[in-house]
Amino acid sequence: QAPETDAKARQGAEARNGQLTKPPGALGRLEDLAIWYAGWRGTDRPVLEAPQIVVFAGNHGVCAQGVSAFPPEVTVQMVANFEHGGAAINQLAKAFGAKMDVHALELDRPTADFTKEAAMSEADCVAALQTGWDAVDSSADLLVTGEMGIGNTTAGAALGAALFGGAGADWVGRGTGVDDAGLANKARVVDEGLALHAARAPLEVLRCLGGRELAAMAGAIAAARAYRIPVILDGFICTAAASVLEKSRAGALDHCVAGHLSAEGAHGKMLDALGKEPLLSLGLRLGEGSGGAAAIGVLKAAVACHSGMATFAEAGVSDG
Amino acid sequence: QAPETDAKARQGAEARNGQLTKPPGALGRLEDLAIWYAGWRGTDRPVLEAPQIVVFAGNHGVCAQGVSAFPPEVTVQMVANFEHGGAAINQLAKAFGAKMDVHALELDRPTADFTKEAAMSEADCVAALQTGWDAVDSSADLLVTGEMGIGNTTAGAALGAALFGGAGADWVGRGTGVDDAGLANKARVVDEGLALHAARAPLEVLRCLGGRELAAMAGAIAAARAYRIPVILDGFICTAAASVLEKSRAGALDHCVAGHLSAEGAHGKMLDALGKEPLLSLGLRLGEGSGGAAAIGVLKAAVACHSGMATFAEAGVSDG
Repeated sequence: QAPETDAKARQGAEARNGQLTKPPGALGRLEDLAIWYAGWRGTDRPVLEAPQIVVFAGNHGVCAQGVSAFPPEVTVQMVANFEHGGAAINQLAKAFGAKMDVHALELDRPTADFTKEAAMSEADCVAALQTGWDAVDSSADLLVTGEMGIGNTTAGAALGAALFGGAGADWVGRGTGVDDAGLANKARVVDEGLALHAARAPLEVLRCLGGRELAAMAGAIAAARAYRIPVILDGFICTAAASVLEKSRAGALDHCVAGHLSAEGAHGKMLDALGKEPLLSLGLRLGEGSGGAAAIGVLKAAVACHSGMATFAEAGVSDG
Repeated sequence: QAPETDAKARQGAEARNGQLTKPPGALGRLEDLAIWYAGWRGTDRPVLEAPQIVVFAGNHGVCAQGVSAFPPEVTVQMVANFEHGGAAINQLAKAFGAKMDVHALELDRPTADFTKEAAMSEADCVAALQTGWDAVDSSADLLVTGEMGIGNTTAGAALGAALFGGAGADWVGRGTGVDDAGLANKARVVDEGLALHAARAPLEVLRCLGGRELAAMAGAIAAARAYRIPVILDGFICTAAASVLEKSRAGALDHCVAGHLSAEGAHGKMLDALGKEPLLSLGLRLGEGSGGAAAIGVLKAAVACHSGMATFAEAGVSDG
């Protein structure tokens, strides 16, 4: 049984919030965030000092359909870049004091082309979910999951369509930068996948249309719930993977907040379907967990204010 | 002559940005921010490691008109709270590694009630501008200016109306939390001020309708320009003060970015008039520089990615 928010800690945080030296509600969404975070951490005065970023990488058989502007070998090249500290996510991890781990998931054995067969066998899908689960440090107090996988915006779009309805054209976007013809091709590829894989049970959607790094993100987000670790979701692909959990059990993402609104076209629609309002909207569309990581500062700000501010009584300030 | 952005550093930063290991434009607005910051700092690979937050406090004669939900003595109480580290802005400064300074501007000598006479004499206004100028640490690499002053959303609204046109009702908001009658009263007060002080030269608007902490913010923002220190603007009152500079000389705020969109009603309209798009929109309406400080993380993220990432050549990644 996955844990729920701690009602007592939440109430304690709400009471504390009402006594802090500011007009009621003047910190806006930062107040809601701090109370939400307090509930999941089980204390009315939490700290946020051990964020973890986990990046999963996978390769996609559907690249044979020409869905990406970049060649598949970029996935392993970027994993090396992560390991040497040269990618955007490395800089963001450093800027926000986060520990960062990278897991390359059998890059030399891409998933199958989902227009021909299921992307993953059951064993492959379960193994990827398990890798994700095991990647989470139970002593972290915040998790951001990111991904790298040439071709994976197509997998994300296929998940969106299969889980929320609609056709390929409703869910595909430009990814790393395809042109109009590339966009139409992605829609066709998704439609072929939807036609071939009619089952709509969320985990079956993940197995047939997803990819290893998407399954790993889902596993990690589920593990975070078990450990009461709040999660900042990244962009389109991360949100698609997370949607598998929410569609499996309503409320499964209550411990998650949306880090940002991606420039990838259908991300806003997916967040709306999940009832998640993004913290940032800066036009990012990089993946790697970059949008989630960029939002760590917002959550840190919220928790720092909540737990560090003086009350009216402590500060001797008239409360209006 | 105020310095302009360094075109060579900007071009160098643009060239570097195009070589970093990401699809072109994939970091969205973070790329624009980094290039903007590089131009003002005069180097194509800048660092951001010494932000300064300066909070100015002032009292307002217009409080006699019943414009605030809080009594004027809260200004000095909150200054003590700043000095003891208990306010929201203290926590944000700590969270983002910023140095924070507080300047209380003759709190026991409020400005005059602008419905009766000019808020400040010329000497008082110049002294406040000078305090702001002198408050900026020339070795800082980022400035956030904040304020505390019971009654100052009314002064901000008066500046908005006088500088950009419209009546009091177009510019007043709920401040720390006035009700509908309070809002109507604020509009009346601003209208009386506008009628009494017909001069629309920006510095005269500041003197007649503003306040010491607004003048000090304007002085600090001007000093930052002289030192080539980029500025993150805070909310409604800070933006109103900054608008005095822009109305005095178009482009005077080119070294400034809008930190956030405040919940104070007319802030969005004011930012639109200045052509500034906010980095955050989290419903803050606290003042103190809190919205500007909360956005430090976004700018840090931008600069960290720009200056820290590997190029395609360095990382051995195929660039599509």
